[in-house]
Amino acid sequence: MKIAISTSSFASIDTNPLELLKTKGLEVVSNPFGRKMNEEEIITHLQGVDGLLAGLEPLNETVFRKCPQLKAITRVGIGMENVDLDAAKKAGIKVSNTPDGPSDSVAEMTLAAALVLSRSMLAANTSLHHKQWNKIIGKGLKHTKVLILGYGRVGQKVAELFHVFGAEVMVCDPMIQSSSLSSYFKLVGLKEGISNAEIISLHTSGNQPILKSLEFELMQEGVILMNSARGALIDEVALIGALESGKVSSAWLDVFAEEPYSGKLTEYEQVLLTPHMSTYSVQCRKDMETEAVNTLLRDLGI
Amino acid sequence: MKIAISTSSFASIDTNPLELLKTKGLEVVSNPFGRKMNEEEIITHLQGVDGLLAGLEPLNETVFRKCPQLKAITRVGIGMENVDLDAAKKAGIKVSNTPDGPSDSVAEMTLAAALVLSRSMLAANTSLHHKQWNKIIGKGLKHTKVLILGYGRVGQKVAELFHVFGAEVMVCDPMIQSSSLSSYFKLVGLKEGISNAEIISLHTSGNQPILKSLEFELMQEGVILMNSARGALIDEVALIGALESGKVSSAWLDVFAEEPYSGKLTEYEQVLLTPHMSTYSVQCRKDMETEAVNTLLRDLGI
Repeated sequence: MKIAISTSSFASIDTNPLELLKTKGLEVVSNPFGRKMNEEEIITHLQGVDGLLAGLEPLNETVFRKCPQLKAITRVGIGMENVDLDAAKKAGIKVSNTPDGPSDSVAEMTLAAALVLSRSMLAANTSLHHKQWNKIIGKGLKHTKVLILGYGRVGQKVAELFHVFGAEVMVCDPMIQSSSLSSYFKLVGLKEGISNAEIISLHTSGNQPILKSLEFELMQEGVILMNSARGALIDEVALIGALESGKVSSAWLDVFAEEPYSGKLTEYEQVLLTPHMSTYSVQCRKDMETEAVNTLLRDLGI
Repeated sequence: MKIAISTSSFASIDTNPLELLKTKGLEVVSNPFGRKMNEEEIITHLQGVDGLLAGLEPLNETVFRKCPQLKAITRVGIGMENVDLDAAKKAGIKVSNTPDGPSDSVAEMTLAAALVLSRSMLAANTSLHHKQWNKIIGKGLKHTKVLILGYGRVGQKVAELFHVFGAEVMVCDPMIQSSSLSSYFKLVGLKEGISNAEIISLHTSGNQPILKSLEFELMQEGVILMNSARGALIDEVALIGALESGKVSSAWLDVFAEEPYSGKLTEYEQVLLTPHMSTYSVQCRKDMETEAVNTLLRDLGI
């Protein structure tokens, strides 16, 4: 059998997951581009392939029709928006993901961003590198109202960590009942949460914007906005307006509607920008890649 | 009675501590410079003054001799290296500090720095602001060996937070017995700790360098170094050598041998620099200033 890998960094940290495939006598082909493939490239890459360790390239009806040998796809990650699940089902292709691996890593980076932005460390760092000694009094996380939008694996982990730092955590998730929530978290509706939060952190799935002009209008002056979930969840034009007006004092964005991103947000110093790397930690890559290989082997019946 | 304030930012966040002084019928004079005063300036500032809410200006035998009305000094903060305690005792001046206020705030900023540096977010942010999409795999804190040098109020708080993020915490403090330490922390000697740590964070008192050329030689390749305690604890020349060689991969410095700092470390992008602001959070300033006023009133018998 032949296995294709389409994530660009697979096994770059730890070769054990790759060795595991090879000890099973499987032929393995890696991503030759070092970046996300387009439809044409992934079709070429998947010729004669039985199983795919997948990134975020398009995996749709056309791809499945042109790669008839494909039997199983495992996303090395959580999100599966790039996979047409109905088309995969019709083509008899099993699709899995690695839901457990990334939570700690994403939560860690989310807290990094929240702490750094709430204490105005980026601006202070830039000033001091220009030899300007500008002390800035930040809000910090203690007693700060934080809205967690989306209470899945990552959202839960993030909420716990904010609580450790003394933040007052609000949770907004239509799938969650108040009774299933820790007593120190408050379940809120979207409007209530957005209107009261000093920090908003997105951890939902979906590809429709949740934060548009209307929602930005509801926000507190000087709110901190953070998105490590999906680029499409925030209307970028509305965000830029809110940065210009000061409504949003600072932001952290790890995901973008189009990636690689090189748009207008790169011009705002108060925006901490990372290139979709919230799952890029040594421990997370090891965990996720091992989980992906084991899942793919299971789905292929090996 | 007359009270002088020498910290440059007193009551800039919350005027309650200042109001408290005024309701007692006290005359209050603030720092007119907006920065740390020198010896001559503090002597002028303290003429006819009974009690001082002190910053980091020199408070020595000369100052006490030229300000004979001074009866009590309360440092708005922890460190008292700027106060000659023997000379104060001889002059009959009570000296206090505010040990409880800053711990949470310093610990919060220490974790901010550790998370951001261990996940290489600064470099990624700079790249993306230059429209370069460079994913970097950071180590993260999970299973990372962290050395806490100095296990006072701040060190304890920092150690607990590192533990929450899954780090393996080593503690080095000659005043601490292994039996008084949580089971998930390991008490180590200085050499053992320095040789094994992936992150070293300083939280000791003192004005003598602890980390000199010899100690840098013992460190792991690529160690992260953080100092929010005292500038003099690190030999700056040795640190610069270690940054040049890559021995120290990145660092966070909030304190410097001379402040305001404008030296050579400002040239290193891998060094996160903040201008002695680890206690500059809204909550911390409120807590510390209230504690300082109450302590000064007590020491003055008001």
